[in-house]
Amino acid sequence: MKVNGKDYRTVWMEGSVVKTIEQRLLPHTFKIVDLPNHRAVAEAISSMLIRGAGAIGDIAGYGMAQVALEAPEEGFWDYVNAGAQRLQQTRPTAQNLFYAVQKVLNAMKAAPNTKEARRIAQEVAQGIADGDAANCEAIGRYGAELIKDGAHVLTHCNAGWLAFADWGSALAPIYMAKRQGKKLFVFADETRPRCQGAILTAWELYQEGVECAVIADNAAGYFMHNGEVDIVITGADRIAANGDTANKIGTYEKAVLAHENGIPFYIAAPSPTVDLKCPSGDAIPIEERSESEVLGAVGITAEGKATYVRIAHANARARNPGFDVTPAKYIKGIITEHGITKPDKIKSIKPG
Amino acid sequence: MKVNGKDYRTVWMEGSVVKTIEQRLLPHTFKIVDLPNHRAVAEAISSMLIRGAGAIGDIAGYGMAQVALEAPEEGFWDYVNAGAQRLQQTRPTAQNLFYAVQKVLNAMKAAPNTKEARRIAQEVAQGIADGDAANCEAIGRYGAELIKDGAHVLTHCNAGWLAFADWGSALAPIYMAKRQGKKLFVFADETRPRCQGAILTAWELYQEGVECAVIADNAAGYFMHNGEVDIVITGADRIAANGDTANKIGTYEKAVLAHENGIPFYIAAPSPTVDLKCPSGDAIPIEERSESEVLGAVGITAEGKATYVRIAHANARARNPGFDVTPAKYIKGIITEHGITKPDKIKSIKPG
Repeated sequence: MKVNGKDYRTVWMEGSVVKTIEQRLLPHTFKIVDLPNHRAVAEAISSMLIRGAGAIGDIAGYGMAQVALEAPEEGFWDYVNAGAQRLQQTRPTAQNLFYAVQKVLNAMKAAPNTKEARRIAQEVAQGIADGDAANCEAIGRYGAELIKDGAHVLTHCNAGWLAFADWGSALAPIYMAKRQGKKLFVFADETRPRCQGAILTAWELYQEGVECAVIADNAAGYFMHNGEVDIVITGADRIAANGDTANKIGTYEKAVLAHENGIPFYIAAPSPTVDLKCPSGDAIPIEERSESEVLGAVGITAEGKATYVRIAHANARARNPGFDVTPAKYIKGIITEHGITKPDKIKSIKPG
Repeated sequence: MKVNGKDYRTVWMEGSVVKTIEQRLLPHTFKIVDLPNHRAVAEAISSMLIRGAGAIGDIAGYGMAQVALEAPEEGFWDYVNAGAQRLQQTRPTAQNLFYAVQKVLNAMKAAPNTKEARRIAQEVAQGIADGDAANCEAIGRYGAELIKDGAHVLTHCNAGWLAFADWGSALAPIYMAKRQGKKLFVFADETRPRCQGAILTAWELYQEGVECAVIADNAAGYFMHNGEVDIVITGADRIAANGDTANKIGTYEKAVLAHENGIPFYIAAPSPTVDLKCPSGDAIPIEERSESEVLGAVGITAEGKATYVRIAHANARARNPGFDVTPAKYIKGIITEHGITKPDKIKSIKPG
């Protein structure tokens, strides 16, 4: 991934310092922050300085490597267990976070001594981030085959490289197609209420030199019906065993509209997103978020000051489901690092 | 219609003064402005102090009554023609505006003398506003029959009393059902990018004591799929002879989603909205509006200051179609002052 023409990863480690992009300042300010210890990493996750399932897993892995480096000889395992606990308690529902912390912890526990445990922690953490990047690159490779030269792609929310170590999921095929020399145009749904499309996706695409127009979520159907959209690709938060897929609120609407207009709708996600314990979308709980997100918006003023403005009247109420479920029947295929799978065949995917 | 428990119309005339609600301050401030002459009325229309097809027609009619009162004995018709011209040039596409100005002008020209022309101008202007209110009330009466006790209604944009003299179109059935003692709940799509749902519809419903939740446009499909929506009613900007209907961007999306989920989708509009010269939706031109609407949002800060905030990065681009066309096949019925009509029978409606 590129920012101002320079190659970056979303999160990486230099010595004992974890480095990442301060995502809360995007897209108006690009800033790399140094997280000197695992407490700073835990704070970065819980305060949403970093977000996105893959990126949270990656930074939690690096946080465990810091725990291993910080732990004193005396009481080594007490410190390590407490650190793992702290990192796991930062976000309630992030599957990747638990997975990464446990993976490093289990590898450390298999080590013959604390010195070796420290070395292994760093190696496994690096492996998690590298594996994430490699999975996303593979998604990009498979997904790019679906994108014809000159294609107009529509995407929802941000499933780009900011949400992973590199490449992203839904945006990986776009970046890969671009590097293959294909001409591309992307419609980025602004993705109310938090506007991750307008804020993050439009910025990522600009940095990668991909032509993009932000659109109101209301306009996606118009452009589809007008014949201006060739393919829709979004990410996923969770994929059930029957292929039903939970993702950011509004994904279901775009899938129905794509279906109605004969436009192929794809989900792109690394295989750990598949949850075989979840039989169907009905079993996926949907979080309702704060009313204030819907009743106002966050941006910068003409003076460059980040500000929340209230749009609705002072007594207005809102409903704010954060996610919705797209039934498998609207999904043409699911792009993972193993290839492109029909939703009703997703059970056969080797997770992780 | 009620504001703070008191009955109002959206626009009315007292002596030679036209009075209306300063809609640009809503929903945070409720203020009645005095427009002492037709120049002030023209300015109010072009600056969007007042908006909505019906309301613009009503105020233009009153503006013509002011023209008649202001016109000097000498050069009476020159003044009247120039005034009519000025009022007609305020907005490019408002059908109701031309209709109202011409209706008053033609009635004046049929008068035997200037004194009688002045009297007739006021009478015809009042008739236009009263007719608008009566049409909307009839829409409310017919539409209320579709709303069951305890119903959950979803609406898009603002087709309420602020857009007409009174009652509104899409919201008239809701107000009527409420006055009939039915229990009601309304989902108001926020309607990005200009947020007329969050700003105007939520405020109107609050003033009328109707329970309402603002939702992100992305969430409409979720609530429909969840079985939480019984009926969808929206307004219309123009209805073609085959029943295809142009309305605020996003209406098409909601119609497709309602259809997919077996929820009846209705258009409510007075009969002059039907344009028999327009054969189908393909013939309706769609205006593209300013990119800045999509790339930011307007609201008030914590200090109560109306402010535009930029959401996307400084170099971001946007596409911003203001309207879309809903094909007749998704529309269960069109509610006019004459009753409820199937879209393929709309040609038989007596316009005006």
